[in-house]
Amino acid sequence: MLQCLDLSLSLDKSDYREKMNELMHELRSLHTECWQKRLTLIIVLEGWAAAGKGKISQKLATCMDPRGFTLHPVVVPTPQEQQYPFLWRFWQVLPAKGNVALFYHSWYTHVLEDRLLESVQTNDVAHCIQAINSFEQQLASDGVAIAKFWIHLSQKELKKRLKKYAKDSLDAWRVRPEDWQQHKYYQQYTSLAEDMIAQTSTGINPWTLISGDCKRWAQVQVLSQIATTLKKLLKHQPTTVSPPIHLPTINPAKSNFDALSQVDLSLSLSSKSYKKQIKKQQLQLRQLQRSIYEQNVPVLAIFEGWDAAGKGGAIKRLTEVLDPRSYRVHAFAAPTDEEKAHHYLWRFWRKLPPAGTIAIFDRSWYGRVLVERVEGFATNLEWQRAYQEIHEFETQLVQGGYVLLKFWLHIDPDEQLKRFQKRQQDPFKQHKITQEDWRNREKWDAYEVAVNQMIERTSSAIAPWTIIPANDKYYARVKVIERLTSAIEDKLIS
Amino acid sequence: MLQCLDLSLSLDKSDYREKMNELMHELRSLHTECWQKRLTLIIVLEGWAAAGKGKISQKLATCMDPRGFTLHPVVVPTPQEQQYPFLWRFWQVLPAKGNVALFYHSWYTHVLEDRLLESVQTNDVAHCIQAINSFEQQLASDGVAIAKFWIHLSQKELKKRLKKYAKDSLDAWRVRPEDWQQHKYYQQYTSLAEDMIAQTSTGINPWTLISGDCKRWAQVQVLSQIATTLKKLLKHQPTTVSPPIHLPTINPAKSNFDALSQVDLSLSLSSKSYKKQIKKQQLQLRQLQRSIYEQNVPVLAIFEGWDAAGKGGAIKRLTEVLDPRSYRVHAFAAPTDEEKAHHYLWRFWRKLPPAGTIAIFDRSWYGRVLVERVEGFATNLEWQRAYQEIHEFETQLVQGGYVLLKFWLHIDPDEQLKRFQKRQQDPFKQHKITQEDWRNREKWDAYEVAVNQMIERTSSAIAPWTIIPANDKYYARVKVIERLTSAIEDKLIS
Repeated sequence: MLQCLDLSLSLDKSDYREKMNELMHELRSLHTECWQKRLTLIIVLEGWAAAGKGKISQKLATCMDPRGFTLHPVVVPTPQEQQYPFLWRFWQVLPAKGNVALFYHSWYTHVLEDRLLESVQTNDVAHCIQAINSFEQQLASDGVAIAKFWIHLSQKELKKRLKKYAKDSLDAWRVRPEDWQQHKYYQQYTSLAEDMIAQTSTGINPWTLISGDCKRWAQVQVLSQIATTLKKLLKHQPTTVSPPIHLPTINPAKSNFDALSQVDLSLSLSSKSYKKQIKKQQLQLRQLQRSIYEQNVPVLAIFEGWDAAGKGGAIKRLTEVLDPRSYRVHAFAAPTDEEKAHHYLWRFWRKLPPAGTIAIFDRSWYGRVLVERVEGFATNLEWQRAYQEIHEFETQLVQGGYVLLKFWLHIDPDEQLKRFQKRQQDPFKQHKITQEDWRNREKWDAYEVAVNQMIERTSSAIAPWTIIPANDKYYARVKVIERLTSAIEDKLIS
Repeated sequence: MLQCLDLSLSLDKSDYREKMNELMHELRSLHTECWQKRLTLIIVLEGWAAAGKGKISQKLATCMDPRGFTLHPVVVPTPQEQQYPFLWRFWQVLPAKGNVALFYHSWYTHVLEDRLLESVQTNDVAHCIQAINSFEQQLASDGVAIAKFWIHLSQKELKKRLKKYAKDSLDAWRVRPEDWQQHKYYQQYTSLAEDMIAQTSTGINPWTLISGDCKRWAQVQVLSQIATTLKKLLKHQPTTVSPPIHLPTINPAKSNFDALSQVDLSLSLSSKSYKKQIKKQQLQLRQLQRSIYEQNVPVLAIFEGWDAAGKGGAIKRLTEVLDPRSYRVHAFAAPTDEEKAHHYLWRFWRKLPPAGTIAIFDRSWYGRVLVERVEGFATNLEWQRAYQEIHEFETQLVQGGYVLLKFWLHIDPDEQLKRFQKRQQDPFKQHKITQEDWRNREKWDAYEVAVNQMIERTSSAIAPWTIIPANDKYYARVKVIERLTSAIEDKLIS
């Protein structure tokens, strides 16, 4: 693949100056227009050491408006970053809508240099590639344009530049020992790059291969490709990013798959047996908390369920004996403006627990296929593709070593009504019941379809749903902790 | 001080149960009310190892609504955190308005355990204490309540508990070697704690000393003090947090101090001499960038100035030769909702450059005493106390090793008018000129008073202002880089 590049392509100084000047002006005004229209671009710069990435970044930083442009130099992950799935650190810095982010090295480093230096295991490469493709596809679906560049050098040119830089007082400090490895293993590195490019050249997020032996040529090529990408972005403004103007149609007929109707809501525990069992389960969980910490395992339990199904109470019983230093509860309500300016999964990535700790999410990314679907906050296309996006996300978590629990707390409409009425009479709990809860209740049937479909579509071997019969609070609370402890135990034994 | 505490105070089981139950209910409803009214509380838990902080945190985590409550366990700072002034990591996690944050250990660890273990130098203790007092005062002025607890144990009780914990399968893993040091050096540690408490018992953010030998007694005391703090907070809702309803009066008479009128705006450079000098300065800066990186020095240059004074152009010339991997430009416009829910300095703390890198701020915290003052976005009290707050902030930066540059780019009204008109005629620059710019221009005199006063009040030996005559863009651009390089050189030599 890469040997087909014509590395003799070049540009003389005067042509270069003229084109560059023109391009930088064009980019500046394209950038401004994209900013005004809240269109987002991610640029990925990969290539040989000394391929001229620095100069290209400099040019871009100079012509883009700094208010909407950020450069992210990607270096070795910190110990903190290493506690998460490898894409975590890139999710943290994704550009908000309207911004351009330039990644100087990127998530590809993990399947390139790390692979050459054997710090990533061969078995993991396939997973990484899959995760990268999902990641980019998710962003593209959200309206983000991604322009990826591989700047190629001949072995001769690479050697010449490394030697030159090593002698230059301004550049010598930037030449790393790893850069010389690239020269030493030029063929191997080329094969790895080709493999990476081949596996990640999705039509929607293509790689542009750049002949880099002539620096002037390479700069002009990269900048003009970016201009093209921005023009395309402005021309085909994705319609999916605009807010939906109609309610999605939900098939009123129930799906064949009906997990909820099979739940035995009569299950219950006596007060005496509850007290005994909850104590036992809590103690066991507390003991497991220590092992989690020592074995550096991250645990994430998410809670979904009907309003008044008892999520809060279950979470309270789950956490009350835990050491408060290594668990955290995150409640998710309507997204903030900053959150709305990012992919909907962004706010969940940001709150993932680090290794060795427990996080409890009170509501979760499933809002996309529940409330956002039923209320029409997401378009049909958006919530329908969410099943896949969620599966990809959860796959990365499980592959990253997470113990992932998904609880649906189930009650029936009669029980809900009873609880709503009780809350309204209790001055201490009145704040927990709002008009919105009554409105949601009227949409019970629509939600039931959505919940059944969610369970059908997102229960997988690696990330199954646990449906908790919750008409009896005692029973539900015990079952939640029981399920959590057994999942943690399974992980620790393995 | 601490030996005066009556450590024999205790509570029997049934009294404890009754009071605790009552307190937890009360705290829950107080918390809800504070949340609705957007009132903020910070709880600091300090005290001996095994003093029962864990159990108290557990109780609080259980009775507070998890949506508005976060516990921050404070451990040894990460290498990333160590690159910043020591309060930086606490600024990052300050609660947004309406939230309760519990710090399990806190910024005080730095002047307590770190001091005992001699990982903080004696000379630095005074600076740390000063920084802590400023920090808490700034938060208090912003309407945040701070409740600080020292839970005291007798040496006998400390030993008993450490021994017991070391044997307990659930707790043993939490006992650190440092905890035994506390026992060994009980007297010294007590003196350090007393010194810390004495130096930071400001009337506004008081310490509550708790007799901890009886766990039940300690829990009830802490929780009831928190309830009292919340009730006080609800009763005396600070008026400063509400948005101002009137324009602040600005003395129309110019201050005696008039730095701006003394600027020689006729200074200029010929095109030829500009080209020569800017090249030289840029090269020098590029060379210094390497030393900054190697010596791990953080550099922060902030730019203020009249609209159209040429900040953008100066920043562009400053950055265009720099290695883009180790500098970053941040432009600050109107704060976002999330930013508004925090102290006004919060967004600047978040963007501080790490050691070894350069950050350029296009506009800065001086907005508080410029636009926010003139437009009435800050009350008189708020912008007036900002002079002190800013001085405290900059002192921490300089003591933290920062090279801090503050540029005011000065032009006269005629020059501004010329540039506005030119921008309006240039289709490529039209977007840079808005109605707001024309409105600001009408308030030139009010701004002039504000700028002069800002320079008068915030130019200090450690953080002087540099006023750049900018009627001639060439001159201004060269001077900015010249001043920056010489400041960096001064730092590197020292």
